[in-house]
Amino acid sequence: MALPANFGGVVPPICTPFTDSGEIDTASLERLLRYLIDGGVTGIFALGTTSETGALTDAQRTQVIETTVATVAGEVPVIVGALASATNVVIEYAQQAQTLGVDAIVALSPYYHKFSEGEIANHFRAVKAAIDIPLIAYNIPQMIGTELSSANVVTLAKEGVIAGVKDSSGNEASFRASVLNTRGIQGFSVFTGGEITVDYSMFAGAAGIVPGLGNVDPAGYRRLYDAAITGDWDAARNEQERLVKLFAILSQATPGRVGISSGVIGGYKTALREMGVIDSNAMAVPFQPLNVEEATKIRAILVEVGLV
Amino acid sequence: MALPANFGGVVPPICTPFTDSGEIDTASLERLLRYLIDGGVTGIFALGTTSETGALTDAQRTQVIETTVATVAGEVPVIVGALASATNVVIEYAQQAQTLGVDAIVALSPYYHKFSEGEIANHFRAVKAAIDIPLIAYNIPQMIGTELSSANVVTLAKEGVIAGVKDSSGNEASFRASVLNTRGIQGFSVFTGGEITVDYSMFAGAAGIVPGLGNVDPAGYRRLYDAAITGDWDAARNEQERLVKLFAILSQATPGRVGISSGVIGGYKTALREMGVIDSNAMAVPFQPLNVEEATKIRAILVEVGLV
Amino acid sequence: MALPANFGGVVPPICTPFTDSGEIDTASLERLLRYLIDGGVTGIFALGTTSETGALTDAQRTQVIETTVATVAGEVPVIVGALASATNVVIEYAQQAQTLGVDAIVALSPYYHKFSEGEIANHFRAVKAAIDIPLIAYNIPQMIGTELSSANVVTLAKEGVIAGVKDSSGNEASFRASVLNTRGIQGFSVFTGGEITVDYSMFAGAAGIVPGLGNVDPAGYRRLYDAAITGDWDAARNEQERLVKLFAILSQATPGRVGISSGVIGGYKTALREMGVIDSNAMAVPFQPLNVEEATKIRAILVEVGLV
Amino acid sequence: MALPANFGGVVPPICTPFTDSGEIDTASLERLLRYLIDGGVTGIFALGTTSETGALTDAQRTQVIETTVATVAGEVPVIVGALASATNVVIEYAQQAQTLGVDAIVALSPYYHKFSEGEIANHFRAVKAAIDIPLIAYNIPQMIGTELSSANVVTLAKEGVIAGVKDSSGNEASFRASVLNTRGIQGFSVFTGGEITVDYSMFAGAAGIVPGLGNVDPAGYRRLYDAAITGDWDAARNEQERLVKLFAILSQATPGRVGISSGVIGGYKTALREMGVIDSNAMAVPFQPLNVEEATKIRAILVEVGLV
Repeated sequence: MALPANFGGVVPPICTPFTDSGEIDTASLERLLRYLIDGGVTGIFALGTTSETGALTDAQRTQVIETTVATVAGEVPVIVGALASATNVVIEYAQQAQTLGVDAIVALSPYYHKFSEGEIANHFRAVKAAIDIPLIAYNIPQMIGTELSSANVVTLAKEGVIAGVKDSSGNEASFRASVLNTRGIQGFSVFTGGEITVDYSMFAGAAGIVPGLGNVDPAGYRRLYDAAITGDWDAARNEQERLVKLFAILSQATPGRVGISSGVIGGYKTALREMGVIDSNAMAVPFQPLNVEEATKIRAILVEVGLV
Repeated sequence: MALPANFGGVVPPICTPFTDSGEIDTASLERLLRYLIDGGVTGIFALGTTSETGALTDAQRTQVIETTVATVAGEVPVIVGALASATNVVIEYAQQAQTLGVDAIVALSPYYHKFSEGEIANHFRAVKAAIDIPLIAYNIPQMIGTELSSANVVTLAKEGVIAGVKDSSGNEASFRASVLNTRGIQGFSVFTGGEITVDYSMFAGAAGIVPGLGNVDPAGYRRLYDAAITGDWDAARNEQERLVKLFAILSQATPGRVGISSGVIGGYKTALREMGVIDSNAMAVPFQPLNVEEATKIRAILVEVGLV
Repeated sequence: MALPANFGGVVPPICTPFTDSGEIDTASLERLLRYLIDGGVTGIFALGTTSETGALTDAQRTQVIETTVATVAGEVPVIVGALASATNVVIEYAQQAQTLGVDAIVALSPYYHKFSEGEIANHFRAVKAAIDIPLIAYNIPQMIGTELSSANVVTLAKEGVIAGVKDSSGNEASFRASVLNTRGIQGFSVFTGGEITVDYSMFAGAAGIVPGLGNVDPAGYRRLYDAAITGDWDAARNEQERLVKLFAILSQATPGRVGISSGVIGGYKTALREMGVIDSNAMAVPFQPLNVEEATKIRAILVEVGLV
Repeated sequence: MALPANFGGVVPPICTPFTDSGEIDTASLERLLRYLIDGGVTGIFALGTTSETGALTDAQRTQVIETTVATVAGEVPVIVGALASATNVVIEYAQQAQTLGVDAIVALSPYYHKFSEGEIANHFRAVKAAIDIPLIAYNIPQMIGTELSSANVVTLAKEGVIAGVKDSSGNEASFRASVLNTRGIQGFSVFTGGEITVDYSMFAGAAGIVPGLGNVDPAGYRRLYDAAITGDWDAARNEQERLVKLFAILSQATPGRVGISSGVIGGYKTALREMGVIDSNAMAVPFQPLNVEEATKIRAILVEVGLV
């Protein structure tokens, strides 16, 4: 399916379930996708940061795309990350994903090396020139050390190179500038990658939201989205404040025992396991899974917000 | 060939020459390797940061390894970077390089995601368990946002997981701690990745040096190394101060026109082209090559230090 | 006057007008205060970041406080920064300001040296113990390199040490946590120090706003505040988007010619001069004033948003 | 006394001893000064970072200067920090110190606000114009968030504005550039503020060293200095490696209990107390003193290196 005009709504960046022996758990992945669609999501984003993408082999990436495309089966658009450090590899990933039938590609600014604004723009132009489906830019400087500037977003939007941006920077001023300065560009969508300021972003004019926490509570984010687009800001705020409580599952790992990323992604996976959506909270090496003590704390939070 | 006991000396991280049409220029790569060996290097490091590694496709990586192994033909050890963001991909790269006949593997800490000290150590343990040749750790936090702590270096050295570390952090206190605390571990080598504090590092007890600028002046770094190991510190300092002047080729790009990485790697490549070693200063997309004006400034520096 | 219960509203951090010869321009300061009160502000914050406080001598600080207290004359509360790097000096400044008749003190976390959470909390406790008027904490990590954590804000609020916080961090997640976790504490107020996300902050539950840009357009921020507290979110957003346009006056300095702070504070002062509120855009050494070319651009923005 | 031509050698930044009740302990300060002079230092630096300067009141600063000048009594030069965030306050401090008879002033780049290279240079020019004794620039970006660039150091040295620089940045490349590019400027001295790379800095061409750890072992640093200037690099390295062991006293505070600065300065003070030089390890609020458990670890290190 093509992306709908003004693609928006709730598009969670999905986890990649693993078996305890380190294989992709496709049965769990299928259940997760069903859980999300039943929860009201308007799109699926596979192979984003939440997917442990940097830790997946090429074969695993293919497996995730194939399972996702087959399971979603056109009910909602599937967008897929072609996350790599430079242009030619992004193009390889993007073309492969296109061949496998995805609806749009998500790409980062180039990273590892340090590039200028012009080089970053050329990167997106080269990726777009190599594919026939929409390209969505992804701004997450805390992971790659490079900011995708709002100025570059606007330039690339006006050129038609990118059909949207997912902004996970937490820089609300820059987010707002992207919204204001792309207003009126047909078919261009600004998404927030935040979890706990989604009401702000919708209020500012976001087209949609890409919350990692949406893996755990897709219906909650859908309620928040629906409240926002109908202008019921009190309801949006109340739902957001409830989700702020749920957000605490991301910080239940014992400090120092595992890194921040294991705490966050492990928090999602542990919650999904506790809720019976996926079988294991295993993650790819070198992520360290959360333990029983940490899972107990996460379960308590799920109880508090009514998810188990 | 196996790594010599107490592997050390001058091991430049080689550039990857490209043609103007974006292909690997194997003829130039062969000339570069010959230039380096004739200059007195004691090893070759392919597919490091200087190689534009993050911008190379799998096919290009293979091509570089094959050309390098064939050209060097055992005259000096060839070590090769398996630079990727997480364990399974590093293992794939490392096993492939081993199959192609390299003498040791260089690996980074995991990046993109944020890991704990223990997860980082487990990463190196898993990589080492998957290969039969020595593993060298690579510390370059300015590129990946993660420091490989001296404590982790010492732990992994004592376990025999790593046979050496290349420290490009510029953190001389941490470098020194790695030297002092691995002294006496048989077969463990600490390398500096610096260009302009090599005399310090040798003075502190480094086994060897991995200077990107060694692409341009291998003989200069060999003189510096030889002076240091014979305790002729005045000669070492004088050679280092001469190389500080040459180091200015890294900062001749017009600010803002290209990013820092294009300025640095483009500086090496432009110098090598001016010296007749390689044919073009082209780089992989999205690197932007240096222009005529910038090349003129670089040539003037080469003249000043006596390289052209 | 004492602070009103649940102190809130629009409390701009005022500029310190200077003559071209480097003296405090008290006549301009009086006109600025009158302009702000006529614009509807609910309080005055003197000797904050916008005042060039770090560049003022003790005598100049006294002069600003005396002029402000006398001019405002109880029409609205006057809060005053006791901004210094450590406890004893903050206490000296705070006691002096109390003696001069101000209504509350604003203090930063200790800086220059690096302190623990507990040491930071003790700092605020010691300052509060030394004064008889309310203490407001000020979070601006981009200036002092230290974050005042939301956890510390909540602890100090519950203890009654601080009566409010001005959060200029731009960290909306932390801001929201401070709002949510101090809700229900009698007499505690969370203020945002932002200029272009004020609607978000009011939506999240801020009691008030402390916008530097409020020096230039107090009435605009008052309209935004009034719209927000009456739940007219469309009006709040529209006013905010207008103020985003005005915010461009902060970035009209030629890059490199002057530093960011001269661009920001010089932007306010130049606008106020162009509007006839103050006589000169001079700043304390080492701030470099904006020039004619830059002032022309600022005037054009003022015209665009209807302020001249 | 005037500064000697080519001022150099060992110039420790002295601690400020406090009584347990929070007063300056002048008797301990006198003993510390005597200990340092007897240990062979070539100058005294009062009111630097190690002095807890940001936590001292004006009255305390005066007391430290007076005691220091009187005690040192011309045996070695006394240089004094006029550390404040902007020009006019630095000038006030500097003029006061000059009046009290110090031999040179040390000043930082302006901080808190963010300034351009040109504004930073103007700051030093204005300070120098206001005093009649030499001015030494102080580069410690980890404390103030602003780098004093080597380019600015060289500019100000050539103009005769500054007579030296104390570089505590840990940026060895920048340090080296300052040394190389001021070589041949009469009367200009580059000092390192490091503790564990002093041999490097001397090797590169430093005129002297300003080690905080020199409070604890002045004789060790003097031996290192003497070895270096006579070209006995093996002896210099050996002494440095011994001092690296002593450096561990800076990291004996329980993580999280106190901040880094309390760990460092508290480490010096606790060692001096254990050695009988000063009476208490008390520090100014909000510094938190080291406890018995931490002091026991520090004592063990002093034993190991032969200081008690």
